[in-house]
Amino acid sequence: MSDIVAPKGFRFKAVSAAIKKPGRLDVAVIFSELPTVAAAVFTTNKVKAAPVLDGIKKIRSGAARAIVVNSGNANACTGPRGLADVKATAQAAAEALGVKPSEVLVSSTGVIGLPLPMDRLLPGVKAAASALDGTLDDVARAIMTTDTFAKAASRTVKLGGKKVTISGLAKGSGMIAPNMATMLAFIVTDAAVEAAMLSDALKNAVKYSFNRITVDGDRSTNDTAVILANGAAGNAAIQPGTPDAEKFMKAVGEVTYELSRMIAKDGEGATKLIEVCVKCARNERDAVRAAMSIANSPLVKTAVYGLDANWGRIVCAAGYSGAALTEDKISVFINRVKIVSGGLATGKDAQAAKAMEADEVNITIDLGVGEAEARVLTCDLTEKYIKINAEYRT
Amino acid sequence: MSDIVAPKGFRFKAVSAAIKKPGRLDVAVIFSELPTVAAAVFTTNKVKAAPVLDGIKKIRSGAARAIVVNSGNANACTGPRGLADVKATAQAAAEALGVKPSEVLVSSTGVIGLPLPMDRLLPGVKAAASALDGTLDDVARAIMTTDTFAKAASRTVKLGGKKVTISGLAKGSGMIAPNMATMLAFIVTDAAVEAAMLSDALKNAVKYSFNRITVDGDRSTNDTAVILANGAAGNAAIQPGTPDAEKFMKAVGEVTYELSRMIAKDGEGATKLIEVCVKCARNERDAVRAAMSIANSPLVKTAVYGLDANWGRIVCAAGYSGAALTEDKISVFINRVKIVSGGLATGKDAQAAKAMEADEVNITIDLGVGEAEARVLTCDLTEKYIKINAEYRT
Repeated sequence: MSDIVAPKGFRFKAVSAAIKKPGRLDVAVIFSELPTVAAAVFTTNKVKAAPVLDGIKKIRSGAARAIVVNSGNANACTGPRGLADVKATAQAAAEALGVKPSEVLVSSTGVIGLPLPMDRLLPGVKAAASALDGTLDDVARAIMTTDTFAKAASRTVKLGGKKVTISGLAKGSGMIAPNMATMLAFIVTDAAVEAAMLSDALKNAVKYSFNRITVDGDRSTNDTAVILANGAAGNAAIQPGTPDAEKFMKAVGEVTYELSRMIAKDGEGATKLIEVCVKCARNERDAVRAAMSIANSPLVKTAVYGLDANWGRIVCAAGYSGAALTEDKISVFINRVKIVSGGLATGKDAQAAKAMEADEVNITIDLGVGEAEARVLTCDLTEKYIKINAEYRT
Repeated sequence: MSDIVAPKGFRFKAVSAAIKKPGRLDVAVIFSELPTVAAAVFTTNKVKAAPVLDGIKKIRSGAARAIVVNSGNANACTGPRGLADVKATAQAAAEALGVKPSEVLVSSTGVIGLPLPMDRLLPGVKAAASALDGTLDDVARAIMTTDTFAKAASRTVKLGGKKVTISGLAKGSGMIAPNMATMLAFIVTDAAVEAAMLSDALKNAVKYSFNRITVDGDRSTNDTAVILANGAAGNAAIQPGTPDAEKFMKAVGEVTYELSRMIAKDGEGATKLIEVCVKCARNERDAVRAAMSIANSPLVKTAVYGLDANWGRIVCAAGYSGAALTEDKISVFINRVKIVSGGLATGKDAQAAKAMEADEVNITIDLGVGEAEARVLTCDLTEKYIKINAEYRT
């Protein structure tokens, strides 16, 4: 990962508090020197981790000054103690940062069901919040769990004559499913943005990025995406329905999409990024449904791993997705090789298998019934996924 | 597999027609010497194999004399040619058996998208239909694809003073999901059964057996369960709402449940059978939903493989299933060791991990909201599943 440009007025620090293996970064603080407008999206799982329950309440204010995050422990299924630990964490950070505890958002990722080691976490939080001399990339590294590389992305655009920077960081990489994932994403921007506008920009960006990736179909207890906009760029606050609003939304969407690609590519044990495109669906819902069905099929994912242009599994997964389709109008392409036409084999399996040797495999299926389309990212399924997840805690 | 008792008046034969590797049984015929009452259930996949499309039409008559089945080729996504091949297959069998083509049901299982090798299949069908000197177990062997053992089960009950036998055979073992699977099941009985009664008995049996197993969440293009009742036992035809009807339905349910267990146990690459029980759900639909969500979770399945009592993944999967739950009332048991109580860890992970060394792992979760329950069978997810499916065609 190349170094990511940070927006003005944000400061970062990551430290090692021995929550993961000693020596690995596992506690981080993101701090805005100015008040921010804030928005967030959380997991739809009915079992929500303590920091998610806390975050849902806090984000209602539409403002925040800091995010404190730890990896190595999810603080999920931890009951009243878990909530008390979130409170203590926010309190410790707030004191060190000179802000109110209600202005500190807390996030956690890692193993479910164990209480946080507060004796190690709190000193880490204080150390990070007191130093703030790190980088956005440090934070990206600190939130990694089974991720093999840190994930950050950035865009710079001119808004109202001012240079505005939008930078994001995220973690994967297991329990990745639509409607968020074991996924944390933090986006910071120095743009001045009107509150409802910021919330819309985040929701829209998440819809086409984090909500359109899947590694294993599991949705976690901790999924969180937060955006903080502090206005340090000096632009006039972006209002909905303006050209600036469009530019801003596009840039946020690009940042989250780039992070999504990184998450899918870094799916546990993956050797390939898979992009599933569904075309000519009855409507967008059907297109997403068919794409998710294909992207979640272990048979499709193992076939990609095995360089097997097994289009029967692709058509089969579309068939059980519930999406409307006309079998004798279906076309399937693998990395642009047309292997199915009019619902029948074209005989180009060997050519398609050859094309699958690339690092990225695009599967495009035309359902032959309408005009809607959707795109979903996933990765192949390998022995290493099994190994990682069979041995995660042992 | 011990030899299975066949009901009276049925004859069987399996032959090798070199559709799979030469020398392996791959074409079989089941024939009833008497007219039968017949019922069937087919895949819900919108992409239906040619024999399924044909079978849906034929079964409307409520009668059949024979079933012809091949493995090695699914005759799915084969267009008009596939339908013509089904017709020719039924025709060839009908001629050899001296019945009408409309009385011959056809089933196929294997690779999707390749035309049937009719030059090899038809001689095989004729040879099998002309001999009929085999056993039900031979047929069970002939329909195996990646199955590691043949699957057959039988029950004998007294109905109206007559001994009645119900015997079934089935195949798994990949693409196994609720609402049928890459699964064929044929049940034959010498009971005399009224037509609507037989159809109800099959639907009820399938609901609690084949529709409650999952290996990989994939539903195939070919799933079929057929029951033929020929009345050779000499009992008065079983009527709905009678004690005999109840006994009959129970016996059919036991046969399909036993076959389901075999299918789950023989899931591709599996080392363990997993039974997921959901208790205290709001209603049966929620119970099934939560059980399926847990049973389909790759993270739960790999944890079982790794002997890791990772209850966080179990609770998490229940949480995203959509089923209502009360987090602080949740209990989780693994092979009767209580690892979660009131939503919190009991600290018995090591004891539970030890208990997981058994060949069968029972996961029971109490959602704490109602009185409904459901039970789903699955298996663990191992490196071997990946290997089998990455290399299936190569």
